[in-house]
Amino acid sequence: MLSREGQVYLEKAAARRPEGLRLDTKELAARLTKGDRRAVAKAITLVENDGKGAAALLRAIGPRLGNAFVVGVTGPPGTGKSSLVDRLTQSYRKKGLRVGIVAIDPTSPITGGAFLGDRIRMVDHAMDQGVFIRSMASRGWAGGLSGAVADVIQLLDAARMDVIMIETVGIGQSDTEVVRVAHAVMVVLMPGLGDDIQASKAGLMEIGDVYVVNKADLPGADEMVVDLLAMARDFKGRSPSVLKVSAAKNEGIEPLVAVLERMRSRFVSSRSDAGDEVRLRSIRGMITELARRRLLVDLEERADASVDELARDVARGRLTVADAADRLVGKSRRG
Amino acid sequence: MLSREGQVYLEKAAARRPEGLRLDTKELAARLTKGDRRAVAKAITLVENDGKGAAALLRAIGPRLGNAFVVGVTGPPGTGKSSLVDRLTQSYRKKGLRVGIVAIDPTSPITGGAFLGDRIRMVDHAMDQGVFIRSMASRGWAGGLSGAVADVIQLLDAARMDVIMIETVGIGQSDTEVVRVAHAVMVVLMPGLGDDIQASKAGLMEIGDVYVVNKADLPGADEMVVDLLAMARDFKGRSPSVLKVSAAKNEGIEPLVAVLERMRSRFVSSRSDAGDEVRLRSIRGMITELARRRLLVDLEERADASVDELARDVARGRLTVADAADRLVGKSRRG
Repeated sequence: MLSREGQVYLEKAAARRPEGLRLDTKELAARLTKGDRRAVAKAITLVENDGKGAAALLRAIGPRLGNAFVVGVTGPPGTGKSSLVDRLTQSYRKKGLRVGIVAIDPTSPITGGAFLGDRIRMVDHAMDQGVFIRSMASRGWAGGLSGAVADVIQLLDAARMDVIMIETVGIGQSDTEVVRVAHAVMVVLMPGLGDDIQASKAGLMEIGDVYVVNKADLPGADEMVVDLLAMARDFKGRSPSVLKVSAAKNEGIEPLVAVLERMRSRFVSSRSDAGDEVRLRSIRGMITELARRRLLVDLEERADASVDELARDVARGRLTVADAADRLVGKSRRG
Repeated sequence: MLSREGQVYLEKAAARRPEGLRLDTKELAARLTKGDRRAVAKAITLVENDGKGAAALLRAIGPRLGNAFVVGVTGPPGTGKSSLVDRLTQSYRKKGLRVGIVAIDPTSPITGGAFLGDRIRMVDHAMDQGVFIRSMASRGWAGGLSGAVADVIQLLDAARMDVIMIETVGIGQSDTEVVRVAHAVMVVLMPGLGDDIQASKAGLMEIGDVYVVNKADLPGADEMVVDLLAMARDFKGRSPSVLKVSAAKNEGIEPLVAVLERMRSRFVSSRSDAGDEVRLRSIRGMITELARRRLLVDLEERADASVDELARDVARGRLTVADAADRLVGKSRRG
């Protein structure tokens, strides 16, 4: 039984091995599409670092989207998303499905991130070729761009994963990104959340396809389920599921997997209209997220070069903030 | 004693009154800079709606930045940020300081947001001209752009507020924005937060100038303070304060205000080098946030027009996601 930390370490170590590094783009793409886990690790590292080879690799893989079912897992911090993802993985593996897990971490780019060290969890498939786990850093606590989620989804899809779970930390921009690119969104809640969560329930009800009340043995779980069901009824045209589970006690997992599998079967089997629409929505999300990322990286570079001077002009009263922003955008557009 | 809900209602109602609407830009700017609360309400509504008058108004106010001390208040949901802000406001008012409060809400743009209804709180200065409270909607649960925070800060600054507190809900993009534009960042925590919070402590330690452990009567408060102090020591070149308070019991508020006031006095009094640097950093943040917002609004409009077709091409295998994103960015840039 290897911890998730150990698992991720192994994946990253594999990506660094010289024999991995010697692969050219074509070879890497070929091995990736055969589902070779080491090739997947190396490819993700390539894409994360935005190395020169990344664009070529994604091109070599080609447009091969649409087999993997992408589940976004979001919800406030502390609700037990990670344990739940582990339980779901166990269940999927019993069915023989290949599972990719991407954990978006709020790991600090400055401090180097002691993130995974703090959550050593049961992942008993370290040597299982059917599971791939990778953590990706978002930019610090306050969110900002996560890594190239859309790119990594394409890689895992190409590597023949049946299910890809993208697990956010419930804070920051990564949530938005995940909601946009996932085929289904699972919102993990727990009884006894603070007022802020209560207050944001309306917004919450718009994004989820499945609502999970985890830690169901805590007081208030049933009330929360009733509450969520009432709110779900108010959303015409959508009928999200609401389920009660306990990841720690391994209770309620199979009914949850059954719900997710029903959604996946509609998605993959017949290429139904509903499935196509979900697929297209996700592709739209990937395109716009990638476009956003490029624009913002571009803006950041230009800001690095010229925002100091603009800010000094604003401080001296020579320029309004709006004019300074216009100049920055203008520069960004000319680029 | 009026609830915050009532207070916000009054502000918005004032902004809608015909006599307010008849003001032209110059008049509005003049009344705003005299600190007239009704003018502030109207100006913020104008800026939020991005009405034609907004740019003109901000120009009429001119570059008048740098008097108000902007405190960003962030931290996970449920830690009691709002109650703490209310307590701080009471204390500031006793000192005769004018206080502006901007609460970034995760109110849903679709459902219309039952947010404030859920947190009816003590705000006993509804008729106090020295306090201005406004809530601004962020885009739904998963974050996204909040409203024009940078613009609103300028308006409140021009309206002669001494302290502006920007209160986030602890989820989503609004946190990033606030951290960038604030002169000081107060991170509100509480004992007993889940693993995710523990895990993101490293990222957390980078953004705060003051760490507040609220609900200090809960078990684990002292351990958390010790923990935070230990982590704070590891950050060379920075020395964030760590304080224990209970907003509910009104305990520990004055020491916290004293810390904030020390920071404010360095900021406003002597126009010291340190103060100037803080001021410039905030202006840089405002410029880049405004530029981001413009780029992303622009991208969104263009995506609305063309992303469907691009997504269909990707689904048919005629285009990679990366190429589609390039086209979207390209279109965006030509605009």
